[in-house]
Amino acid sequence: MTRQPPVSGTTECQLANLLEAGLLIPSGVPGVYGLSGTFESVVEHFEAYLTRVSAQFGAEVMRFPPLLSRRTYRLTDHLDMFPNLMGSVHTFLGTGAEAAELTRKNQAGEDWSADLAPTDVMLTPAACYPLYPTATGVLPGEGRTVDLRAFVFRHEPSSDPARMQIFRQREFVRLGTPLQALAHRDGWLDRGRALLCAVGLDPQPVVANDPFFGDGHRLMAATQREQTLKYELVATTSSAEKPTAIASCNCHLDHFGRAFDIRTTDGELAHSACIGFGLERITLALFAAHGFRPSAWPASVRGVLEL
Amino acid sequence: MTRQPPVSGTTECQLANLLEAGLLIPSGVPGVYGLSGTFESVVEHFEAYLTRVSAQFGAEVMRFPPLLSRRTYRLTDHLDMFPNLMGSVHTFLGTGAEAAELTRKNQAGEDWSADLAPTDVMLTPAACYPLYPTATGVLPGEGRTVDLRAFVFRHEPSSDPARMQIFRQREFVRLGTPLQALAHRDGWLDRGRALLCAVGLDPQPVVANDPFFGDGHRLMAATQREQTLKYELVATTSSAEKPTAIASCNCHLDHFGRAFDIRTTDGELAHSACIGFGLERITLALFAAHGFRPSAWPASVRGVLEL
Repeated sequence: MTRQPPVSGTTECQLANLLEAGLLIPSGVPGVYGLSGTFESVVEHFEAYLTRVSAQFGAEVMRFPPLLSRRTYRLTDHLDMFPNLMGSVHTFLGTGAEAAELTRKNQAGEDWSADLAPTDVMLTPAACYPLYPTATGVLPGEGRTVDLRAFVFRHEPSSDPARMQIFRQREFVRLGTPLQALAHRDGWLDRGRALLCAVGLDPQPVVANDPFFGDGHRLMAATQREQTLKYELVATTSSAEKPTAIASCNCHLDHFGRAFDIRTTDGELAHSACIGFGLERITLALFAAHGFRPSAWPASVRGVLEL
Repeated sequence: MTRQPPVSGTTECQLANLLEAGLLIPSGVPGVYGLSGTFESVVEHFEAYLTRVSAQFGAEVMRFPPLLSRRTYRLTDHLDMFPNLMGSVHTFLGTGAEAAELTRKNQAGEDWSADLAPTDVMLTPAACYPLYPTATGVLPGEGRTVDLRAFVFRHEPSSDPARMQIFRQREFVRLGTPLQALAHRDGWLDRGRALLCAVGLDPQPVVANDPFFGDGHRLMAATQREQTLKYELVATTSSAEKPTAIASCNCHLDHFGRAFDIRTTDGELAHSACIGFGLERITLALFAAHGFRPSAWPASVRGVLEL
């Protein structure tokens, strides 16, 4: 019995093609891949392009590692909203004798994970989470605009190459008054769409909601959509029928201002908003639109990306 | 009672200075920091310099995320050697009712970590680990040279800014015959020292051993030193009396070849060797040597780094 090849235009087929071309390198875990030099080079050039486009805004650059303080995590409602996506980091805190037992279990193929203890850190669920606890207090009158990039983790193993468990987000976050936050979100929705169009993508803005866990949050998803708090820019990464969000523009209202006591000069809780660019997804969309060889991409796209 | 300021020249003092200057941003967890735009810019320029210096070797570029397959981890002896440094990623796999209980515990300040289940991934302990399972089989006759960069995790909370729990390694790894591996290690020991001297550091090569856990591995540490398998390039990051390893040059013999069945064309187990540059530590050494303002660094250093 021969195994059927994946159907053309599906996520499985696109994954097979990307692995075959060597652009993705399998790790043995669905949604966790190594990236080839070619793939990484596109990520780097797209990032540099974002840096050039955003230079006019003079955003403060901050770079956080892929870990978030567990205490910070507990102050958010991520555990309530998305417990199934979390990554909690555990380690071994025992004695030499207990370590020997760990080794024995490992060699016998037994599970040793219950012998571990939680550390003070979690994997970062979104690039902007580590920012908020550093902003506790009163913002300057003009608010703040911050340029972030981080690896983020979401436990959702998938055969869709665009649904990685760990990937990089480049985010521009605004902290300020409700009007400052909304203007940032709306300005970047247009700007984000235009800068993605300039590299030959045709991203469509769609109203979206976060993937809340369980039935208890249905109302929340409906409210988020009704208030149009979240827009995604969607484009083809595998299938034209099922486009993928490659950027996300969000208004958080005073959600993080309240959790971390961030205030504007008038004493009100700060609002926040962000645009997040999914760097691996944008790269996958570029490969889907222009082919797997960047040297053969349209001259206009190569020009914009300085490839 | 006033708190004593940290003593000049100590790691605590240097950490206070780096935080005060805004180069490091506290996360609330020792050894986990955000980096300012200035800090990150030095990392990026040093990386670009490494890329220029190494271009002559035509190494294959591969980029892995900070996660390693748990199955791969179990095939190494990291659990036996360094269980105390590991990072195991756990998540929530339960039902809606169990999620509600998780939320209740979180709000009551109770520990919910025991309600989690291990995922298929660990945090990567060293940049080269994800490479080896992709190399299973027979190497080309000339062996392989691979250019890696990754975030790596080591659970060792510390007030020394150079001892981060999560940091980036840029590695050049050689897979091949014993002679190819040794020549790579020795060549890069000289080359690494020269390229660090060119940016005004004076790194000294010292024979070293890995920080094996417990008493059971004392002989292993002694053997590693006796066979001079590991050299570190040490430089000042806080205290001239206690220099810090900023790069590490290692011969692994057939350690990984055996674990992942990597062979040379003659059917023998492959040897491997690597040089790893600690990007945050090198940046800290540059700040210690030249001050906190890269714009005021010596012209020769700025020239080499194209700052």
